[in-house]
Amino acid sequence: VLVFVGLGLCDGGISYRGLREAREADAVYLELYTSLVPGVDVRSLEGVLGRPLKVVDRKTLEETPGEILEPAKSQKVVLLVPGDPMVATTHVDLRLRAAKMGVATRIVHAGSIISAAAGLTGLQSYKFGPHATVPFRDAPSTRPYEVLVENRRRGLHTLLLLDLRAEEMRAMTANEGMTAMLELEWEFGNGVFTESTLVVVVARAESDDALVKAGEVGVLMNSDFGPPPHVLVVPGKLHFLEAESLRFFAGAPAGVLDELGG
Amino acid sequence: VLVFVGLGLCDGGISYRGLREAREADAVYLELYTSLVPGVDVRSLEGVLGRPLKVVDRKTLEETPGEILEPAKSQKVVLLVPGDPMVATTHVDLRLRAAKMGVATRIVHAGSIISAAAGLTGLQSYKFGPHATVPFRDAPSTRPYEVLVENRRRGLHTLLLLDLRAEEMRAMTANEGMTAMLELEWEFGNGVFTESTLVVVVARAESDDALVKAGEVGVLMNSDFGPPPHVLVVPGKLHFLEAESLRFFAGAPAGVLDELGG
Repeated sequence: VLVFVGLGLCDGGISYRGLREAREADAVYLELYTSLVPGVDVRSLEGVLGRPLKVVDRKTLEETPGEILEPAKSQKVVLLVPGDPMVATTHVDLRLRAAKMGVATRIVHAGSIISAAAGLTGLQSYKFGPHATVPFRDAPSTRPYEVLVENRRRGLHTLLLLDLRAEEMRAMTANEGMTAMLELEWEFGNGVFTESTLVVVVARAESDDALVKAGEVGVLMNSDFGPPPHVLVVPGKLHFLEAESLRFFAGAPAGVLDELGG
Repeated sequence: VLVFVGLGLCDGGISYRGLREAREADAVYLELYTSLVPGVDVRSLEGVLGRPLKVVDRKTLEETPGEILEPAKSQKVVLLVPGDPMVATTHVDLRLRAAKMGVATRIVHAGSIISAAAGLTGLQSYKFGPHATVPFRDAPSTRPYEVLVENRRRGLHTLLLLDLRAEEMRAMTANEGMTAMLELEWEFGNGVFTESTLVVVVARAESDDALVKAGEVGVLMNSDFGPPPHVLVVPGKLHFLEAESLRFFAGAPAGVLDELGG
């Protein structure tokens, strides 16, 4: 059996069930390239689990996954992954390959920015439209802008994940993400992401030095949010409880909120 | 400080960080009415944490939260909650009340059906539109149907949560949820939830006896999915990897999938 175990948002994010699965496994693999998990590295996890881990890179997981799947035919193999498993397409692909080889799979869930973005900002979970990823400039995509346009049309909030290339040690910052979105705005001109748009930056969610900051794009563009991971949330139509939350938990300026009120 | 700690989807879903917070707290409260967490009860949690817990009901949390907030002014108070904190509006409301009293808050995240529904069904996380809750018949709402119509129009998947009244020991089953949605279909007639619509039932997500079953509404209506919690997922337009996932992980019949292919 192959058990996907989520590491959650930062150190200590793995669940009690996940710890048990990893401790009882015949082999434990670890990938840390699909997302950043502040405070988590191989040594710290080996300390928590009390056993050695084998790190797998993108190439192994996507091109030669037999290294993990073959032993899983007869043994219990655990793959530790950032966040909640299966948010990254790579995990879905690996799970399908396992199924086609007759290897059973299980998932042990953990905190994900998909759900946590609502909690941290105080925006209602059921008012989020689909999320999208803002890519680096060398692989441009209009998709995050299109998703934002559609979500705003429906009054929905939008979570924008930011590109990561762990192999190149590059993680997009909120500032770079805002620049990329502004460039799309200049190209398409729907007015959904201008310098006066209210945006929320979430940095290092759940970590001891987590930061949640709301403000106008033009102002936050020039702020320093510390090391990644960062995400952006673009609020849609705000309920008054949501506006209050942005003020109390994200320091949103009162004037900006008035414009979005429901 | 008041720390909201998520219990995740089932027993053992609390994170390592959450366990630490609860063990170090001056007082630990527990609410189990906003969602069902299979395998979790007061005794089992007291065993894991090695300390007594105080259970709070809806009335206390929503009407007289001072019991929790007053001690949090000077002490570290932990509130254990089902799933990922803040998905339930009650938690957002309590956090706002705390802020207005000058009580700092923190959130320790955990697995949520909001994120897990994608992983368990193999449907892509970024293709989910907003979710909605199907209410019991005595408090009818057209909202889940409207959300489904809008999501389907955009080709998006829809997670439908099912009503829960813990005080009355009532949790809606997938069968009741499908009946309620069919009644809305008869009323509005957009054709988004008929007896031939492909739907996925997820029961007791992550538990040892979890069940994920895809099929036509007319067929699944008459199946038994065991005890709640259940949720429904109505797929939108399917990528071929998603269709494969539904076949391998949810036993979807091939014929139904062909109709939804991308």
